[in-house]
Amino acid sequence: MENVIVNYLEKPDIKDPILIEGLPGVGNVGKLAAEHLIDELHAVKFAALYSKHFPPQVLVGENGVAKLVNNEFHFVKSSDKAQKDLIILIGDYQGMTPEGQYELASKVLDVAKEFGVKKIFTLGGYGMGKVVKYPRVLGATTTDELVKEMMEYGITFPKGEPGSGIVGASGLLLGLGKLMGMESVCLMGETSGYFADPKAAQAVLEVLTKILNVKIDFKELEMKAKEIDYMASKLKDLERTMTEGQEEDLNYFG
Amino acid sequence: MENVIVNYLEKPDIKDPILIEGLPGVGNVGKLAAEHLIDELHAVKFAALYSKHFPPQVLVGENGVAKLVNNEFHFVKSSDKAQKDLIILIGDYQGMTPEGQYELASKVLDVAKEFGVKKIFTLGGYGMGKVVKYPRVLGATTTDELVKEMMEYGITFPKGEPGSGIVGASGLLLGLGKLMGMESVCLMGETSGYFADPKAAQAVLEVLTKILNVKIDFKELEMKAKEIDYMASKLKDLERTMTEGQEEDLNYFG
Amino acid sequence: MENVIVNYLEKPDIKDPILIEGLPGVGNVGKLAAEHLIDELHAVKFAALYSKHFPPQVLVGENGVAKLVNNEFHFVKSSDKAQKDLIILIGDYQGMTPEGQYELASKVLDVAKEFGVKKIFTLGGYGMGKVVKYPRVLGATTTDELVKEMMEYGITFPKGEPGSGIVGASGLLLGLGKLMGMESVCLMGETSGYFADPKAAQAVLEVLTKILNVKIDFKELEMKAKEIDYMASKLKDLERTMTEGQEEDLNYFG
Amino acid sequence: MENVIVNYLEKPDIKDPILIEGLPGVGNVGKLAAEHLIDELHAVKFAALYSKHFPPQVLVGENGVAKLVNNEFHFVKSSDKAQKDLIILIGDYQGMTPEGQYELASKVLDVAKEFGVKKIFTLGGYGMGKVVKYPRVLGATTTDELVKEMMEYGITFPKGEPGSGIVGASGLLLGLGKLMGMESVCLMGETSGYFADPKAAQAVLEVLTKILNVKIDFKELEMKAKEIDYMASKLKDLERTMTEGQEEDLNYFG
Repeated sequence: MENVIVNYLEKPDIKDPILIEGLPGVGNVGKLAAEHLIDELHAVKFAALYSKHFPPQVLVGENGVAKLVNNEFHFVKSSDKAQKDLIILIGDYQGMTPEGQYELASKVLDVAKEFGVKKIFTLGGYGMGKVVKYPRVLGATTTDELVKEMMEYGITFPKGEPGSGIVGASGLLLGLGKLMGMESVCLMGETSGYFADPKAAQAVLEVLTKILNVKIDFKELEMKAKEIDYMASKLKDLERTMTEGQEEDLNYFG
Repeated sequence: MENVIVNYLEKPDIKDPILIEGLPGVGNVGKLAAEHLIDELHAVKFAALYSKHFPPQVLVGENGVAKLVNNEFHFVKSSDKAQKDLIILIGDYQGMTPEGQYELASKVLDVAKEFGVKKIFTLGGYGMGKVVKYPRVLGATTTDELVKEMMEYGITFPKGEPGSGIVGASGLLLGLGKLMGMESVCLMGETSGYFADPKAAQAVLEVLTKILNVKIDFKELEMKAKEIDYMASKLKDLERTMTEGQEEDLNYFG
Repeated sequence: MENVIVNYLEKPDIKDPILIEGLPGVGNVGKLAAEHLIDELHAVKFAALYSKHFPPQVLVGENGVAKLVNNEFHFVKSSDKAQKDLIILIGDYQGMTPEGQYELASKVLDVAKEFGVKKIFTLGGYGMGKVVKYPRVLGATTTDELVKEMMEYGITFPKGEPGSGIVGASGLLLGLGKLMGMESVCLMGETSGYFADPKAAQAVLEVLTKILNVKIDFKELEMKAKEIDYMASKLKDLERTMTEGQEEDLNYFG
Repeated sequence: MENVIVNYLEKPDIKDPILIEGLPGVGNVGKLAAEHLIDELHAVKFAALYSKHFPPQVLVGENGVAKLVNNEFHFVKSSDKAQKDLIILIGDYQGMTPEGQYELASKVLDVAKEFGVKKIFTLGGYGMGKVVKYPRVLGATTTDELVKEMMEYGITFPKGEPGSGIVGASGLLLGLGKLMGMESVCLMGETSGYFADPKAAQAVLEVLTKILNVKIDFKELEMKAKEIDYMASKLKDLERTMTEGQEEDLNYFG
């Protein structure tokens, strides 16, 4: 079989679209953000990407129907001239090996190129190792001009961060995309990395939607964030109970 | 060499056959079931599949003759119009890597397609982590209609199970087969997962033979199940002896 | 680069040769045996096999000159009609991955086929987990007839052994060779597996030279065996000293 | 995508160049040496090599601009007839798998061949497991003549070292280059292997520049060496403080 297979449901009539990637990663920030964007903008699935670089696995839905793990392309056709058409990439997994990650990112860019993509936003989390109350959005781009442009949207470019670079699809689409003549921005929401982090996803989306000149509702993400906060506070209580009478250590969720 | 090689002994004259897969896995349920079906239906081996995705190994028979590890295709030509022709896949191993599993499942489906297969049953175990007296048979399918149809045979589709999906050949044949236009059902017999489990294999076969409208004898499987039960009870005795005088803990085989 | 490269120094004029394989493995029995055979029969190197499935490594000789790790083909042109021409395969490594092992064995068989090989002897060790004073030679073959033939040379075919089959080149050449119409015998000398084992290598060669109808000297191997025995006895003394006053346990070298 | 991609910025007009490799490795000796050589000789980058055998990663510069991890080719056009043109290879990583290392070395040699390279120097460290005050430069070559020639430059060829051979690009370029008719020398500076080691890099460069008949300044490397020495002495002090009152153990940095 081919290493990566793209199955089209339709070939949407979109012009000069922007690619937005949100695959699983640190705090699932990118995935949460991209899925929320798809819901809010009523994006339509138009292609699925299967690969032997994913786990050899089907997922079984509540109805008992199985689905091979994949990545999916959705599109948004803009109705407003001030907005751009979008392709949004989400998925169950990233590639399981370094080689697989390259193959997959390369195929995603082939699809992007076919639809005339010239600009990419990759979404992800930036692991802080502690709970972040007001997550900032960190950035990395492929050109100096984009750095300046992004700073105007309040995106932070701290010197020497991320020190270890950006690993996975969010990094590769920038790097390989650049080789194919595409401009890219990676947006990373600060997150503890302990939980799926809807708050960080919202921080990323608030910036992204400004850039894209679209308006979306954040209620769903806010509700998810409250659920996570509630679970975290329960864990904190539990920890407190267990350390009672001992020297108190609240650093973890401090 | 090619990644996967299919060596034909003959090209059987079968029409519209159903593919049944029983490769090694949890409790070896699928393998035990498929091998028993081959014995009872006097299925005939017609092809062997070799691959560099299997271990680099020969198995040596009691006679001193070595055989490269493989998967094997057997066929059953039905003599009754109320029954369908069958292709039954068994084997020594599944692929050793995720990529290998995809390659192998893809080749199996190529063979299936060549013979006009439109429906697949994959057989496996569902690990419960404890001994199961009366194993149920859980199912997953590729269409809503099949879920309904299978429920009529007493197959269980518990919501949200298996939570981690189905990994390996039993899952991939469903997932990749769907992409090739084949309908599939995965039948999973509940099993402790501690031993090879002929009882779970029998549970799976009792359902499958009803669906296939064939009658087979279960004596062999029942004898194997008794042997396993005997061994398990011996181990339980041993455990009891060793924990005597201590707080008794029989959960393991409880 | 190609996965496996064969570099010929010459294409020897040999007829209907027998292939003998002795690559590194348990107790290095096969390698020691094949290298000794090359020395004693003055076999001539005619080809080297390089591959990305070997470690990415050069070995540096005493003269400071580096050599890429490889496998090597040597040939013996028989001068006696009662003897057959030989191709002997030795090497620094076996393939590092299962897939690599298949690729390498497949290429070796391509070379063998080119020279008209119809019979293969693979040499190896059979790990006993304890020191063996009088190592037997165990066998596995690709046909019933060969089992009978080999038994006449004193080769042992114990029922159900080796239980785990034969892994690596010694197994694959049998298995893949059979698919290409070649007959094969694997000869395994019993060995502790703790050390390189020249004694087991000699046991294997004593049988093999009878089969091949050639006579060779074993002095070199006997000397190596004495060195190993000396080292083993020194280790045993050391162990005795260290356990003095304690309950004595000589099982390990018993 | 292709396994290895070479992107040219220009095709330099160089004649009969010598290839010098300095990729990351033990004590980063080769990388430090090659980067220093590039700085001092004002070498010009002319090509970048990308590969799925590198980590799936971008590095982010201080300006916020991301760069896909790669290896880079630089060239030096000699202005003096007594000197040769040079190609210098540096990079962020070596290949992550054995197969990847072979693929990458093979592609580097393809590039080298295109520009008529007939001689290669690979630079690396030789790990001693202890701090070395006056690092020697060990050598390995592809011919006896080169051993003699290199000895005249003070390069050491200790019998039986490196016992484990040379692993990675520095070894493979020798081994694979030889198969392509290129002569090579590996220069290894003795290093503790605990730190990046500019002193070992300088030792290697002092010999290499003599061979190449070029003169360079070593101030930068000497400053880096002082920084490392300072850090090492601070660590030593710390260790001394922590073991005060205890039996002193200064072996580590002795």
